[in-house]
This record gives sequence, structure tokens and C-alpha cells, in this order.
Amino acid sequence: MTTAEGHPGEGRPLGEHELDRLDAYWRAANYLSVGQIYLMDNPLLTEPLRPEHVKPRLLGHWGTTPGLTFVLAHLNRVIAERDLSVLSVLGPGHGGPAALATAWLDRTYGEVYPEAGRDAEGMRALFRRFSFPGGAPSHVAPETPGSIHEGGELGYSLAHAYGAAFDNPDLVVACVVGDGEAETGPLAASWHSTKFLDPARDGAVLPILHLNGYKIANPAVLARIGDRELRALLEGYGHRVHLVSGDEPSAMHRAMAAELDLALDEIAAIQHAARSGTLTDRPQWPVIVLRSPKGWTGPKVVDGVPVEGTWRSHQVPLSGVREDPERLAQLEAWLRSYRPEELFDAHGHPTELIDELVPEGERRLSATPYANGGLLRADLRLPDFREFAVDVPAPGATTAEATRVLGRWLREVVRANPHTFRLFGPDETASNRLDAVLEATDRAWMAGRLPTDEHLGRAGRVMEVLSEHLCQGWLEGYLLTGRHGLFSCYEAFIHIVDSMFNQHAKWLKVSRALPWRRPISSLNYLLTSHVWRQDHNGFSHQDPGFLDHVVNKKAEVVRVYLPPDANTLLSVVDHCLRSRDYVNVVVAGKQPAPNWLSMPEAIAHCTRGVGLFEWASTDSGHEPDVVLACAGDVPTLETLAATKILRAELPELAVRVVNVVDLMRLQPPSEHPHGMPDSEFDALFTPDRPIVFAFHGYPWLIHRLAYRRRGHANLHVRGYIEEGTTTTPFDMVMLNNLDRFHLVMDVIDRVPGLAVRAAHLRQRMADE
Amino acid sequence: MTTAEGHPGEGRPLGEHELDRLDAYWRAANYLSVGQIYLMDNPLLTEPLRPEHVKPRLLGHWGTTPGLTFVLAHLNRVIAERDLSVLSVLGPGHGGPAALATAWLDRTYGEVYPEAGRDAEGMRALFRRFSFPGGAPSHVAPETPGSIHEGGELGYSLAHAYGAAFDNPDLVVACVVGDGEAETGPLAASWHSTKFLDPARDGAVLPILHLNGYKIANPAVLARIGDRELRALLEGYGHRVHLVSGDEPSAMHRAMAAELDLALDEIAAIQHAARSGTLTDRPQWPVIVLRSPKGWTGPKVVDGVPVEGTWRSHQVPLSGVREDPERLAQLEAWLRSYRPEELFDAHGHPTELIDELVPEGERRLSATPYANGGLLRADLRLPDFREFAVDVPAPGATTAEATRVLGRWLREVVRANPHTFRLFGPDETASNRLDAVLEATDRAWMAGRLPTDEHLGRAGRVMEVLSEHLCQGWLEGYLLTGRHGLFSCYEAFIHIVDSMFNQHAKWLKVSRALPWRRPISSLNYLLTSHVWRQDHNGFSHQDPGFLDHVVNKKAEVVRVYLPPDANTLLSVVDHCLRSRDYVNVVVAGKQPAPNWLSMPEAIAHCTRGVGLFEWASTDSGHEPDVVLACAGDVPTLETLAATKILRAELPELAVRVVNVVDLMRLQPPSEHPHGMPDSEFDALFTPDRPIVFAFHGYPWLIHRLAYRRRGHANLHVRGYIEEGTTTTPFDMVMLNNLDRFHLVMDVIDRVPGLAVRAAHLRQRMADE
Ligand SMILES: Cc1ncc(C[n+]2csc(CCOP(=O)(O)OP(=O)(O)O)c2C)c(N)n1
Ligand SMILES: Cc1ncc(C[n+]2csc(CCOP(=O)(O)OP(=O)(O)O)c2C)c(N)n1
Ligand SMILES: [Mg+2]
Ligand SMILES: [Mg+2]
Repeated sequence: MTTAEGHPGEGRPLGEHELDRLDAYWRAANYLSVGQIYLMDNPLLTEPLRPEHVKPRLLGHWGTTPGLTFVLAHLNRVIAERDLSVLSVLGPGHGGPAALATAWLDRTYGEVYPEAGRDAEGMRALFRRFSFPGGAPSHVAPETPGSIHEGGELGYSLAHAYGAAFDNPDLVVACVVGDGEAETGPLAASWHSTKFLDPARDGAVLPILHLNGYKIANPAVLARIGDRELRALLEGYGHRVHLVSGDEPSAMHRAMAAELDLALDEIAAIQHAARSGTLTDRPQWPVIVLRSPKGWTGPKVVDGVPVEGTWRSHQVPLSGVREDPERLAQLEAWLRSYRPEELFDAHGHPTELIDELVPEGERRLSATPYANGGLLRADLRLPDFREFAVDVPAPGATTAEATRVLGRWLREVVRANPHTFRLFGPDETASNRLDAVLEATDRAWMAGRLPTDEHLGRAGRVMEVLSEHLCQGWLEGYLLTGRHGLFSCYEAFIHIVDSMFNQHAKWLKVSRALPWRRPISSLNYLLTSHVWRQDHNGFSHQDPGFLDHVVNKKAEVVRVYLPPDANTLLSVVDHCLRSRDYVNVVVAGKQPAPNWLSMPEAIAHCTRGVGLFEWASTDSGHEPDVVLACAGDVPTLETLAATKILRAELPELAVRVVNVVDLMRLQPPSEHPHGMPDSEFDALFTPDRPIVFAFHGYPWLIHRLAYRRRGHANLHVRGYIEEGTTTTPFDMVMLNNLDRFHLVMDVIDRVPGLAVRAAHLRQRMADE
Repeated sequence: MTTAEGHPGEGRPLGEHELDRLDAYWRAANYLSVGQIYLMDNPLLTEPLRPEHVKPRLLGHWGTTPGLTFVLAHLNRVIAERDLSVLSVLGPGHGGPAALATAWLDRTYGEVYPEAGRDAEGMRALFRRFSFPGGAPSHVAPETPGSIHEGGELGYSLAHAYGAAFDNPDLVVACVVGDGEAETGPLAASWHSTKFLDPARDGAVLPILHLNGYKIANPAVLARIGDRELRALLEGYGHRVHLVSGDEPSAMHRAMAAELDLALDEIAAIQHAARSGTLTDRPQWPVIVLRSPKGWTGPKVVDGVPVEGTWRSHQVPLSGVREDPERLAQLEAWLRSYRPEELFDAHGHPTELIDELVPEGERRLSATPYANGGLLRADLRLPDFREFAVDVPAPGATTAEATRVLGRWLREVVRANPHTFRLFGPDETASNRLDAVLEATDRAWMAGRLPTDEHLGRAGRVMEVLSEHLCQGWLEGYLLTGRHGLFSCYEAFIHIVDSMFNQHAKWLKVSRALPWRRPISSLNYLLTSHVWRQDHNGFSHQDPGFLDHVVNKKAEVVRVYLPPDANTLLSVVDHCLRSRDYVNVVVAGKQPAPNWLSMPEAIAHCTRGVGLFEWASTDSGHEPDVVLACAGDVPTLETLAATKILRAELPELAVRVVNVVDLMRLQPPSEHPHGMPDSEFDALFTPDRPIVFAFHGYPWLIHRLAYRRRGHANLHVRGYIEEGTTTTPFDMVMLNNLDRFHLVMDVIDRVPGLAVRAAHLRQRMADE
């Protein structure tokens, strides 16, 4: 059964030649996909297939591939016909062969990997590179031309697609969503992105729900709820549904072409209305539902059980091919069913019929600069952050809410970069005290509005949705297509996107090694409402462990900053917004807190990344008796309070205060590019004096970073030890032994000879 | 406007007395909620409100509270009227005051916290305890009687609700979902849980979508898409919609009562049909949409701007009350608007009218044993795992797929516990080679089926959905209501639930300190398809960092096991399924791998947690020259291969092989209950010999655990250093320097005096 629903009859009918072209292209892409999974030789099947032509290890995912090639073929048609910029995002990214086949056919693959050009030798290279060490991964990945999407961990395609579409008014992002993928939380949340996309200033996202019926071994929910519920669901998301369903190729080509045309017409109409000012309501954006068999055109039956159209086609539907002549014959028949001799000439060049479908230049799906955002990226225009400095006549003489100060600068960043910078957050921009930005812009909002609403608008630069996943996914898509952004989040809840951070950090690591991938802007996190200040909330909101998570990723892509006050925060964020190809994590408080450094001092301190607070030290340039180190705003406050007590009570004690802004400086240079040499570490922290380190996060992270240092045995770290509840800030530091009194006791316990002398002081401290 | 849609007229009309009762109860609960946020004295307002009656720090969330109290009042009505077991799950759990008011009114609060009984003194204690250090957290939390849900991190309520309903056929779980919360990915995914709930053997979930219009500072998406789209969406999820909308209390009470009755009638009808065998289609379960003002009944206008019905009521709508007499008067008027004198007698006892609505005994929302699962929990009946042992005539003489072996035992666990044990996973049970369980049971599946489907059934014990969030959330709900389970997951993707793990570990930590909370079964993870064996996938699937994440949580609740082979895996999982109040993380391979230990040896080894492999050591009971330590199946294999090379090439070298199963044994006993004393550590690892440690995960974790040990300076760890791609298993260990040849080189480089002697061997190793 084939239905082209929606508005039957309205679509332009597909000419016979167009149909032939589409089908030839599709067969070619399928052939190339099967070849990648199976063949190491005899790419054109110029001779009968023999066992030694087949790879010894059969890897890859066939099941999703024919659906993807089908979509990609049809996208090529409309790109050429309408001269469109299309970026494809393949949610079921394990269908890597489909993307690589497309890239090979549109010549990009050979441009990037010259050994794999469009001839028989190149085809052989395409096949061999697939899933081979040092070659092409089996998923879409940084190595895949035309992709901004890592297809390994499912769930983020649609969020990436929307991120790519923001502020790209001429772009259509065609996003294939797996019906299995659609069960994930992040994907399920992403559908509502329609309420955040401005048809006037943003591009369009065309979701294509790939209803091939199965995930790995189970049916997919959306494939089994019936058309009525499915349609209701998608309409509930705000879409207009175009259903393409069936398995007979030419009918399916006709249906898909018709529905795709309708969908693109609808998009054009929406955009036209929005851009000419005639759009009043929130538009109903089109969605295409493609219901087709999993493993379509693959082996129908293997060993007496159905394979095409079932979960059995998910990976490699025919195994043991080298060993079993029957299987070998079945593979050969499968490959020949695409009639390769009609698709490629004797040299392996695709025929003209196919080439007619392949777009030119940057219009090619695999060559679009939108998929290699660094090509499009321009530096931000950054207002001078020094002008936003808070006045610090003396250390601690004034107080500020650090994030509020930052907000005022960000407001100007927004103003200066009206099309390339956005702020993302789960409805916490005001709570995190960045609301000055709302003086310059709105929160993006396409849904209904009421008179009591404030700061909502279509063209808002502030993206607020109660989904950390969406914030992260949108931002990734935005960065990967060449723009800039900042994600501000409650510190504890950033763990919600741990795995998304992982995948992005992996993306950066790999793409840095690919010369053709241009650097993109860093992914910047501002973590605030942090562990030490959860007065309104409690234990559930106390978790500084994202730092531990982040430092597991490749050192060359991760940076962690803990500015102790407002001016240092400004300096750090300015730095982060200039950087490329990193993940920067900045932790800062939003509560009123003392300012320690004037702006010139702040800049110098942040440039060093770690430094002495001379004004708080009493070692007068000599060897100290003890080093009090600190990282983070609250630990810095407690450390400085402890030094004050020590100055008053034990004036003869030589105390050195070291503050760490750039956490990675603690590592050896062999471990991190920011790592300081041992000589510098020893000079600052001493090789032999006790170091009492007050840390923002879990204490063992400091040990982990510093365990190779000479002075490590003398290092005593206080930090969050997972004690907390709804309580006062001071009780929080007390509960975790990070308070000034504990720090003083730590000093007394650790400086040789002090214990006896300072017993009275110690007892007073313990009583506090 | 008030509408009671759905099936107008069908509901039983509410009698006047019933209405009075409901309204009195609701007013009482609201009064008690405002009291918790504001008052520290004068609880009954027996005297005019003075500044000193008001708390100096005003904390808490008012906005969501009146909606919650409204729902809870109505639940009380139906519980009594229908003699129902109802468990309430409050998604907007920041509305803690509502749950505590309920608990106070139904006497549970005073039973648990005797100082806070149902009189004026007790009311004062209720108010003072709220959001006070050592008292009640501002969110629903372990301290909240009647809750299985931590309300801090939003998104998991509905998944918890379904988990609670599984295998509890007599239970109705009423789950309030915030309209903000509904934007989160996990919540969005949870709606499809209807396809996994068996109306015959499971209880019912009644979602109540709390459309109060706002989240923190923004409107909520679902509140602004209009009724048509909202209805379509919920119908798309498989629900039948009951809309209750308005703000006039008595009309709203009537509407809510009517719709709640209809919804419960529908539930009863569905269950009756399913249980009498007449249900054919998947049922359309009811959902209630409650559209009411945020901060309902609170201050309408403050300082000239609207507060009730806007985001401004989210937290504390009136601030500065102690300082500003006008505000104080406004607060007093607000409190008196509930007419407390009609609700409580002079002693502070609730009046009879209210008490008529309060259920008895275990039917009380706050006293239901379902919310204190340990009360209901019974130990699993565990078949003897020894009978599933693989034969190991000599170390390495046989091979097995460890998880496949485990699967056979799990099959019998399922058989022996048909109502209290479930297996959860994101469609990976077969991929993870646990598919033997499908011989004993199906995968739960209520959606459409096709003839080609296998192992799908309504009553299946295997829960497969492509959402790690749902797996985790369901399992948590299942455990928290007294049952048992195992979550098997690809190792890399378990990071998707990092933050959910956090919240559960925090829950366990807190609940262990509450004597009235009974221990529940541990949350067991089986992480497989691990970092070292991603032949089909690649870099995106390589991440062993969950272990690092887990060890940040309180030592008393976390356990990490790395069984090196099949028999040890059996022994470890048996142990885990018996344990309570822990999170157990087990990492094990699914690929064919050598068996090292016979079952008796495996049991002894796992009991010790760490031990010598004497048969692989050449130190013949004396001091070794070097210790080769290992943890994890692949590192163990490489280590044993390295010892083999060393035995052959450097026979005079005394090598000791130590294998670690229970990772926490590496910590000092002061850090973890499993930690071994220094004496034992020194004896095993030596205080002064080089230790070459081959580790499954990121190497620094071992340093972190062992940095206080005497031998730490001699410890050299190999592990995953974030290098990988789609490649062979051996290439993976090579890329990360964990292979046998590197280990041999490490030995040569580290054993004093060996470098010169073994230069030839080293060169050969380097060439490999
Ligand atoms: C978050 C996540 N969990 C689990 C997996 C394992 N996995 C790989 S493919 C797949 C099924 C995908 O199904 P679907 O999205 O329908 O893709 P298709 O049917 O087109 O292959 C699963 C569960 C994964 N890749 N990501
Ligand atoms: C995952 C997560 N992100 C952010 C927050 C911060 N937060 C606390 S309450 C809230 C708004 C909740 O809105 P809703 O669910 O509608 O609850 P209600 O309106 O009933 O208060 C937010 C965003 C959170 N608690 N959890
Ligand atoms: Mg699918
Ligand atoms: Mg709300």
C-alpha cells in the first residue's frame, strides 16, 4: 500500500525521467552501501563474487540505510530543482554507509579522501575504508563530510537540526529521526522546538520520521500506535503531517516526491508570510512520515526466516558469507539486484542519469559549508569587558553578584552580534542573574502570549526551555554551523547532559585531527547556582561533579575555570568567547560576594591562571610555613577569612595564599597544555610545606590533578563531601569542613610544631 | 471559565457537604503551606501578625503549591469513597509544603516527627521545620512521608509513577506533572509508558498535567499551545483527556470531582476488562489536565504588578514582610483569607469537617506503604548460581561469553520471582547476550503486534524501550515500592542517566539516616558492550567514565565490581541482587573470553574482592620484583598474556599478579566500608615494588582511590586514555597502551636493573 496523504493530488507529478533518475541514484547509493559493509574487492562485480572479495569481519548497520539513501536521493532532487541550501542530519547515524555513499556520489568523498574518488579504484577504497581502523567510522561522525551529527548516541538529531536552523534564514535542515531514536527523552523533547523557531529570521527544519518499524531487536513504539494516534501526536507537536508509506519503489518515489514538494511549498509559504509580515499565528510546520520496511531491498528471507521488514535486518543481514556458498550467492544476487552495470560505467564512474541528480558545488549535501561551520564562522565582536569592571578599591572592600556583572557585558555582546550569538538556559537566565540581557533582547517564543508576559518575542536571542538536553543540543547545532553561544545552567543539573558533553568533546577531538574541518567556536558553560549556595533548594541541587566528568576527556579540548569574583569572571568569559574547538566550563556564583581583584589584577591573575594573593599572604616573599590554596568563590572567601584569623591569632606564622582560576594548570604539562612545569608548581606551592587546599568541588579532583607533584604528600584538600540539605550558606561549608575554622584547624594540625602552641586557638575554632 | 469536559454530565454531582469538606480541606492545606513558608510563630493567628512571627529568611515555592493541595484534597476524597490505594507522585516537587501539609493533616507527619503533631504546638513545629537546617527540605524528598520522589531535579515523576505501578495491580498512582517539567526530555519520553503497562497485572497511572501556565520566569509550552493541540498531543500519547479549567474554587471542585470520578471509572473499566479477558485493544488511559492559576489564592497584586496567575508567584510572592508593614498586612490578609478559625479549633486540631476527608491507616497518602517500599519488600528467591557455572579445568582453558552465562541464571531468577523482579534495558537485552531470559518471559509490549514479532507480550518481565531515562526511572519507581531489578546498558551510554543516578544515590544516603524508611533493594547496573569491545561501533561508544562519576557519591551507598570472567560475574550479581540500599555497578564483557576461575575459586575471589592469582604469579610466595595488577576482563586478559611473555622471556623475574573485583577495596577503610587496611594493601601490592596496574577505565581513577597508600609512588596505571575508533579489540588496547606488549615494557622500564638486561625483549615488544 502506498499513500501520499496530506493533500493528495496537490503535488507536482514526477516525470518518468525524473523517476528513473531518482531510482537509479537510490539503487546506486544502496549498492555502494552494501558494498561498504561486505566488499573488499571486485567493487563493480565485474567478475563473479568469490569469498576472498568479501571482508573477513562484517560490520555495519544495513537496516536503516535504504531509508536514508531514499531520503537523500529525494533531497538531491529538490536541491537542484529549487536551488536550495539543505543540510541533512541523520538521526539513525549508524546508517553511516548511506552518508558515505552520498558523499562518494557527489564527489565530496574523493575531494576529502583523494584515494576514494569516483572510479573503480576509488569505489574499492570507499568499501575498504568503511569500518576499518583509520578509515571511516560506521556511524556518521566528524570524518563524514556533510555531517554535523555524531550518530552513535541516539536522541540529539532534531535538537541539532534546530540549532543549525537558528539564524540561517536560507537553510532547510532535513532531519531524519529514527522511530527508535524517537523513544529517547531528548528527541521527544525536541519536537517542541517549533515554539522557538522564528520563521522570519531562522531557517526551516523538516523532520522526516523514519518509521521503519524497529529499533535493534524490538518494534518501535511510534510504528505501532497506528496512524490515528501518530497523526494526533505530530499535530500535537504543532506539525502538519505528510505520510509516505509503502514498499514498492516507483510508487514510493512518486509519493515521496509529491509530499516533499508539498512540504517545501508549505515551508516557503510560511517563510514568505513571516518575512512579509502577514503571518499571524504560529505556523504549522510540515513533517514527513516515511513508513518503509527496515532493510528495504535487502534479503527477504534468510534461513527460512523473514529479514527484510523485520528487526533482523538491523545490522548485517547475511553473515558467514565467506564460508557458506549459498550465502555468498545470496549476497551476489542482492548486489546485482541493483543492476550496477546500469549505474556505473566500466571505469566505475556513475552514469549521467545519476549525475543529473547530483547538485553542484556548495549545494551538495556533503559539501555544504553549513556542515563545516568553521568555514562560515566569524569572530564575535566583543565589547571591552574592562568597561564593565566593578570597582575594587581594596580586596574585599566591595561586593557584587558576579553573574549579574557578567550579564551586563553579555547584554552588549548580544547587541553587538545580533545574528551570531545566543544565550541558552533552562529557564534560569533571570534566576542566574543574567537578566540584564533582557534589556537588549527577548526570550525566543513563538507560542501563545498573554498581556502579563514580559520579554517574550519571536526574534529573541535568549533560548529558554526547561530541558537541559535541548539547550545543549540547540547550542551544539548552532556552534557546529559556525556561530557562538553560552549555556548557563544550575551546576548540579548540568549532569543531565553529561553524555551529550561526552559526544561533543569526542567530536572536537576527532575533528581537530581532520585538516578539512575548520575550527568552530568553543562550547561555553556557565555553571552557577552552585553547590555552596542552595538556600532555596537543597541536597538535590548540590553536585559539583561535572568538573570530574569533564577532565576525563582529552586534555586538548577541555578547560575549567573557577574565577573567584566578578572581575575575574568577566575576564574569563571574554577569553572563552574568543576561543575555538574547546569546551570551557566556568563556575561562578550569583550571590553577593566580595570582590577581591581590580580589573588589571583580575586580568593578570586570569592570564596566569594561578597566582599568589600577595595582599593576603604573610610570607613576605620568603618561604611560607603553610600554603593556603583555593579555587572557587566560596572556598576563596573561606580561605581569606581563615588567613585573617591566622594573622590575628598567629601573627608569626608565614602564610601563603594561592588562588587557582584555571584548574588545568595544576596538571603536569605532559597531561594538559595548560599544565604548569614542576618547577613552577614547586615554587608556588612549595615542595615540602603543608598545603591546605580549599576547593569548590569534590576534593579528590585536586589530588587527581596534582598526584604527580613533589609536594603531593603534603597536600590536604577540603571540598564538597556530599553533605548537604536545605540550609544556610555557612552551614553548608561547615557540614563539609570547608569553613574558615576548619581551615585554621587544618593549618594547626599540619604545620610542624604548631599543634602545641596553638592548642587554645584550635579549641576555639572547634567550638565555632 | 470552568469546564469539566470529557463526558459532560456523566460524573456524579458533588453534594454540598462534600464540597464544603473539600474546600475546607483545601483551605487548610493552603493555610498550612503559607504558614510553612512564612511563619515561625503565632501559627493559628490567634493574635495579630507581628514581624517577629515571620521567618527572617523566606524560602520555598508557593506557586505550584495550591494546585498540588487541590489535587491532594481530591485524591483524599476518592480514596475514602472508593477504598483505593493511591500513591501520589508530585512532579513539581518544589511544592514541598503541599505534601507536608497533607502529611500533617493525615497525622503521618506527627507519627514520624512527634514534635509536629496535630495541635498548635505541632503546627508551629511544622512551620519551623520547613526549609530549616535539619528539618524538612523545601522539596518532596526522602524526609517527606508519602513520597517516593525527589522533587529537586525535574523530569522523572511520570517514569517513577509507572515503575511504582508495575506489578501492583491494586494501586493507583496519581502523578502530577508540571507544565514546565513536561518540557524535559525524560518526562516527554515517559508518556509512552502506556505501551508498557499491563492493565491486567499492573496498577494504573493517572497523570494530572498541572497547567499552571509557567515555569520559573517563562510561560510553559504546553500551557500556550491551545486546547486543540494539547488534546491532540495527549491523545497521541494514547490518553483520553479530562480537562478541568478555571479559577473559581467551588466550580473547580465540582469539575475536578466529576472528572476524577470519570477517570477512575475508566480505569476500573479498563482493569475489569483486562482482568476478565475482554479487553482486546490497547486501552486509552485517562489523563487529567488541570488548568489553574499559578499561585492560586495567593496575593493577586503586589506593588502594582499581577502576581497570582503569573510567574511572579513561583517562589515567595511577598518578600520583605518583616520590614514592610504593608506587606505584613498583606500576608496576614492572605493567611486569614483561608479562614483558619473555621479550619482548626482553639488547640489547633483540624475540625471534623476536614477529618472526614482524611483516609485511615495505610490508605493515607502519606502513610501508604507503597511510598516506603522497604516495608513491602521481600527478598528475592535466588536459584543457586553455582549450578550455572562454566567449567574451568584450568585457568584460561575454556572460554565463555560472560553475560550469556549470566543470562541463563537470570532466566531462572525471572522464573522464581514472577511478580517482583524485572530486567530493564534500552533494547539491548539480546545485544548484551542476556536473551536466555526470553525463554522464560516476554518483553512487555502493549502496542501493536505483527506475526513476525517474537517475545512480545503484555505480561513480559523484560522492559525494553530506547530510553535510558525511562529504564532508570521505571526501575527506581519499581525499587522504591519494594521490588527488585537489574538495568543492563551499554557502558558508554549509561552517562545518559548520570544525573538520575546522582539523585537516587542522594535519596539512598538520606533515607538510610531516617529510621522510619525501610531499606529497599539496591539499584543494580550491568554495564556491558564496554569500551574495549566496540567492534561495530566506535569512538562514540567508548567511555568507561561512569565509574568515576559513581565514586563521587557517598561511599556507604556505592559499590563497583569488575568481575574478570563468567563465574565471577555470576557470583557478583548474585551478591548484588541480595543487597539493599546500594547502587551496585557491575562491568562485564559479552564477547567470548577466557574463563580463569572455577566456581569455588570465583566465589572465594569475589568474597575477598581482591586477590592474588597464584597460578599466574612467579613470586612463589616470596617478595615479587614487580606486581602486575588488573581490574576488568580485558585488562586481566592482557595482564595474564604479559605474565606469560615474562615467564618465557625473563623466567628469573618474580612477578605477582593481583586481580581486583571490588574496586572499592583499593580505598582506605576510612573512605569506604569495603576499603582494605594499609597492612593488607601493603602485603598484597608491596610498599616498595613497582606496580603496573592494567585498568578497565580511565587510569587516574586508580590513583584517586589509592593515592594515600604507601606504595602509591610506585603505582603505574594503564587504562583508557580516550583513544579509539571503529577498530579491532586488539587495536583498541594498543591505541591506549594497555596491551600485553606495553605492559611488558612497563615492567622492563620500572623494575630496577631490568632495563639493560631486557633491552632486546623491550625492542621486540615495541615492534609489535
Ligand atoms: C542512546 C542510545 N541507546 C542505545 C543505543 C543502541 N542502539 C543502536 S541502534 C539502536 C536502534 C535504533 O533504532 P532506530 O532509531 O529506529 O534506527 P533504525 O531502525 O533506522 O536503525 C539502538 C538502540 C544507542 N545507539 N544510543
Ligand atoms: C532539570 C531541572 N532543571 C531546572 C530546574 C530549575 N527549576 C526549578 S522549578 C522550575 C520550574 C518548574 O515549572 P513547573 O514544572 O511548571 O512547576 P510549577 O509551575 O508547578 O512550579 C525550574 C526550571 C530544575 N528543578 N530541574
Ligand atoms: Mg527504526
Ligand atoms: Mg508550571
